[in-house]
Amino acid sequence: MIIVMAPQSTEEHIEAVVERLEQLGYEHHISRGVQHTIIGAIGAPEGEKEMLAEQLSVLPGVDNVVPILKPYKMISREHNPRPATVFIGDAAIGGGHLGVIAGPCSVESREQMIQTGTAVKAAGACALRGGAYKPRTSPYSFQGLGPEGLEYLAAARETTGLPLVTEVMDVRQVERVAEVADCMQIGARNMQNYDLLKEAGASGKPVMLKRGFAATVGEWLTATEYIASSGCLDIILCERGIRTFETTTRFTMDIGGMVAARRETYLPIVADPSHATGLSSLVPAVALAAVAAGADGLLIEVHPRPDQALSDGPQSLTPAAFADLMKRIRRVAEAVGVEV
Amino acid sequence: MIIVMAPQSTEEHIEAVVERLEQLGYEHHISRGVQHTIIGAIGAPEGEKEMLAEQLSVLPGVDNVVPILKPYKMISREHNPRPATVFIGDAAIGGGHLGVIAGPCSVESREQMIQTGTAVKAAGACALRGGAYKPRTSPYSFQGLGPEGLEYLAAARETTGLPLVTEVMDVRQVERVAEVADCMQIGARNMQNYDLLKEAGASGKPVMLKRGFAATVGEWLTATEYIASSGCLDIILCERGIRTFETTTRFTMDIGGMVAARRETYLPIVADPSHATGLSSLVPAVALAAVAAGADGLLIEVHPRPDQALSDGPQSLTPAAFADLMKRIRRVAEAVGVEV
Amino acid sequence: MIIVMAPQSTEEHIEAVVERLEQLGYEHHISRGVQHTIIGAIGAPEGEKEMLAEQLSVLPGVDNVVPILKPYKMISREHNPRPATVFIGDAAIGGGHLGVIAGPCSVESREQMIQTGTAVKAAGACALRGGAYKPRTSPYSFQGLGPEGLEYLAAARETTGLPLVTEVMDVRQVERVAEVADCMQIGARNMQNYDLLKEAGASGKPVMLKRGFAATVGEWLTATEYIASSGCLDIILCERGIRTFETTTRFTMDIGGMVAARRETYLPIVADPSHATGLSSLVPAVALAAVAAGADGLLIEVHPRPDQALSDGPQSLTPAAFADLMKRIRRVAEAVGVEV
Amino acid sequence: MIIVMAPQSTEEHIEAVVERLEQLGYEHHISRGVQHTIIGAIGAPEGEKEMLAEQLSVLPGVDNVVPILKPYKMISREHNPRPATVFIGDAAIGGGHLGVIAGPCSVESREQMIQTGTAVKAAGACALRGGAYKPRTSPYSFQGLGPEGLEYLAAARETTGLPLVTEVMDVRQVERVAEVADCMQIGARNMQNYDLLKEAGASGKPVMLKRGFAATVGEWLTATEYIASSGCLDIILCERGIRTFETTTRFTMDIGGMVAARRETYLPIVADPSHATGLSSLVPAVALAAVAAGADGLLIEVHPRPDQALSDGPQSLTPAAFADLMKRIRRVAEAVGVEV
Repeated sequence: MIIVMAPQSTEEHIEAVVERLEQLGYEHHISRGVQHTIIGAIGAPEGEKEMLAEQLSVLPGVDNVVPILKPYKMISREHNPRPATVFIGDAAIGGGHLGVIAGPCSVESREQMIQTGTAVKAAGACALRGGAYKPRTSPYSFQGLGPEGLEYLAAARETTGLPLVTEVMDVRQVERVAEVADCMQIGARNMQNYDLLKEAGASGKPVMLKRGFAATVGEWLTATEYIASSGCLDIILCERGIRTFETTTRFTMDIGGMVAARRETYLPIVADPSHATGLSSLVPAVALAAVAAGADGLLIEVHPRPDQALSDGPQSLTPAAFADLMKRIRRVAEAVGVEV
Repeated sequence: MIIVMAPQSTEEHIEAVVERLEQLGYEHHISRGVQHTIIGAIGAPEGEKEMLAEQLSVLPGVDNVVPILKPYKMISREHNPRPATVFIGDAAIGGGHLGVIAGPCSVESREQMIQTGTAVKAAGACALRGGAYKPRTSPYSFQGLGPEGLEYLAAARETTGLPLVTEVMDVRQVERVAEVADCMQIGARNMQNYDLLKEAGASGKPVMLKRGFAATVGEWLTATEYIASSGCLDIILCERGIRTFETTTRFTMDIGGMVAARRETYLPIVADPSHATGLSSLVPAVALAAVAAGADGLLIEVHPRPDQALSDGPQSLTPAAFADLMKRIRRVAEAVGVEV
Repeated sequence: MIIVMAPQSTEEHIEAVVERLEQLGYEHHISRGVQHTIIGAIGAPEGEKEMLAEQLSVLPGVDNVVPILKPYKMISREHNPRPATVFIGDAAIGGGHLGVIAGPCSVESREQMIQTGTAVKAAGACALRGGAYKPRTSPYSFQGLGPEGLEYLAAARETTGLPLVTEVMDVRQVERVAEVADCMQIGARNMQNYDLLKEAGASGKPVMLKRGFAATVGEWLTATEYIASSGCLDIILCERGIRTFETTTRFTMDIGGMVAARRETYLPIVADPSHATGLSSLVPAVALAAVAAGADGLLIEVHPRPDQALSDGPQSLTPAAFADLMKRIRRVAEAVGVEV
Repeated sequence: MIIVMAPQSTEEHIEAVVERLEQLGYEHHISRGVQHTIIGAIGAPEGEKEMLAEQLSVLPGVDNVVPILKPYKMISREHNPRPATVFIGDAAIGGGHLGVIAGPCSVESREQMIQTGTAVKAAGACALRGGAYKPRTSPYSFQGLGPEGLEYLAAARETTGLPLVTEVMDVRQVERVAEVADCMQIGARNMQNYDLLKEAGASGKPVMLKRGFAATVGEWLTATEYIASSGCLDIILCERGIRTFETTTRFTMDIGGMVAARRETYLPIVADPSHATGLSSLVPAVALAAVAAGADGLLIEVHPRPDQALSDGPQSLTPAAFADLMKRIRRVAEAVGVEV
């Protein structure tokens, strides 16, 4: 941590900062310049004390406090430089394995799940997605089938053999969802629902954490640390687009942020071009972009009849369009040296 | 709802749209132009069916679907044109009453709460705030005192007579928080934690819903509808800044959005200049701005020793600075004709 | 400037940084921590060399370079702590004087300008605005009357006595506009049109610089430095809303950014609620907010017939609505201790 | 255009709208619903009159005006469905040809340009970039060599045979730059400098228009229309990242926006991963993403010594890193069926 003193700060101000640093357990070095004095605080103490550093910015004469250490640890490449492979059932994601997870936004019926699962498996998907619990912007929209939806998911796994990814929205659902899901998804709206992160991290199942659509890369990685510190390191991150001023697309796929995040963490990161664009016509190009940029996998919405989907129809591919996309994904994956 | 057909759409495309509209229960009118045909769909059906309108955008030949009806109803001025007054204990917010809710970010000790409550009451605050449960970006930061914090809040109410506003983060806390709080706050990070909205709305206590920092005004109002449709109309909205590219301030206070929201809903809206700016030096000017723009109240962080606060010190006012601000608030409130 | 070395950096890396700092004329102090070594570089050289600091971030072993000095100087409060008053003709802006500049978006006719000028003067405006040269998003929109428009502006000044503020868009217009205008406005789209800033700064007339709608406060102040370093210190800054994800309003008035900018510069800052909101129904509340927050003036669009305006009708007040607003502005100005 | 009347609008309000539509030359159809009446206006007149439609939103009883027609015409795929190939000298961009334009941010010396040009040509670049006129955020930064820089560019072309892309910032430079450049670049900060667009469009040289970093796709395409309507259809668009809340990268590459723009216009679109990310470590992955998503070319900053670059060193590749990237680009280009 670096404390930048204001030009008009006095010796007393500097002494007060030094005293506080000593209380907090830091060592310090003072650099006195013509305009600014800089105090470098090193040997940061563990845990909560480190977080109290923001108190220093309130002391008189302090212009600015610049943190040096990152707020995440267990999930950092400094902690573990080797890219991890996370398994959803028997499907490998990361470490050179590109996994494509596909399926409808919402679970609507047993037939829909079996039909979609069969189609996406034939095309090369490694896992089936579908939501039984749905976070919907409006209370008047379809809210998901709940436990019945979980049952249909299980039926589709039984028929197709594909492992399941499904969302959990509420701490009270964690136990039930963990019984069925091979990987529990936490959605963008819940990225900072910290109790949910902790419960999911303690559930014993792999967790996929979507980036909040207004979360910085740093906040996303720090939220991931909640899951890791609850005992789970089988974590997959998912970039699904951020909110920007651009409204041509539903969200803005942050390709550069995804690449930056992959340099910070050893955990696999997948991309969700369906939510990032909101338009099925843009999904294929953005999916290929993510693969070329090094994504460890993709999350793609597929529905047998997008024009009758109870949610997210406009961004869902038909099974035929998905099969075509898988062929193109394989070519790009090969060009960048990963295995689908 | 208006369906704009693409220039190259055919009669068959138009017929398919009309057929679907009839299935969904809409009436329609077709306007045929040189370049575009427009289909107006009116007499919208209730509830879920209306939400299926997005399916129409997937039909062949459809360029665009423009919704007309707003997704919120119970909280709308069309539903009830008179501004509501909501009571937190005996403190009136809205309907010409400006209520200032003040207190620390986190409950840290019994003494801190009693000392702060006494000071803000003397200065003119109408309610005391303080968090027992804290949503913190990092798992290594102070996470709040929990039930012990609720106890200190209750003690401060007993001593000062001020009603309490405190945050609830997890559905499992709702019952316990409702026993103590005079108003339950749902924070920005949880604005779309729909299960929490429903439980809070069913708790029997007034609810203050902060705007998510990446939520549009429309999404904020629609999330409010979750609370209303759970049986609670004693709702206060709180604008606390949105996330933008500007980093000089922690968030960007959306004064225009607050004014626009007040024109849409009859519910009172308060402003939180502490979170919106993140810097105590900017809080007074932004607080006055909110009052001049018509806010029904303010939420202001006050801490006896900002340099020792366990959270949000940099944006907390001292009791003396708060007392000075209250004098200025009274002058501006008088200028715009509201009562503090 | 602070150079943060990466955890795995070597002695050679540190030496290379030190060598480069010496070449650039900096003094340095090294603080060695367990995880990070920090190099404080002080005694920064003048001008261009200082800007080369970013080169240091490219050196091997360097994690991050944190600048300390601000990129603006002449316009900074460190340079001159006393708030300046800038005169547009005989109208004072800043230093406790609130100036309201009003008029139509575009100059459309002699009559329109005289009629509007007469009305806004009667209501209490201190200067008349109106564009002869218009930057329009579409080449098919009305592009302004050009020299003829300048003539109508001059006629309105002659009749009403109000000094004029008008926009300059192109370096080739500067001379001609300077002959007529009492203050030259540079619009948001041209905030980083550096040649225009330099020419306007050398024209001998006061300059009003609008904030680019995607410019940070720091970039806005740094652009202002271009004008100052061209010889002009009669500069007024104008906050007119930034672009964010929110589309309820045309832009987002950045009240907190305006307040932060006023703490950095001694130059007056006015607010433009018309462009910030884009909706005449929101203009009054946001105008009052800006006054309460300490704005040194306002820029408000007024048109005799908003429904026939050739540009910006939806955000223009009628003369009657403007007169009503002026009364409310006076009350809030008095409450915060400034003179209209 | 669709006019949505407010629920409380009267017959007189509707008649007034209809009357105005007739004055403007539109035909109309009225759809009366239970809550809303909708007026469809079709047969839009040409040019300026169409732009006056916003006046309608000011009429009493009007809730909202929804435009249907796009504000760009000449550059639209509706105008010309076949993808265009634009030539920079003899280098083809678009229509299945992927062109990589490389070189330093600023022209610094004759040797630097010749050395860089030779290196990027050997690696497979089709054109050389370099700025003689530089738009710099600070007036104290290096501002470019001006005419001397143009001379060095010409020398590099003579030696290497590579055609030149260089930026024009000021209308007074257009003639001189057009003498040397094979393609004139208009930078992001000048995207809405309309006089510059018109002059560049009339210069007889191809123009590359960078997207403003706060411009929507629609505004970018509409700005392009200024160039087209000045007589130039040899236009290349360049996506170079937009400004968002994320600061890990300098800007946010908008892959989805680029794909959406390619569906709207037949003109080629290239991507600039150097400016979009600001970090050389992220450039390769984002460059590959752009190619996979269908970009018609790339703009990549290459400098022989990034640690001594007078501008943009942190985002510049070394010639060796560029040569390595070109190999990877070729593999991805082949996978998506375009020719480098």
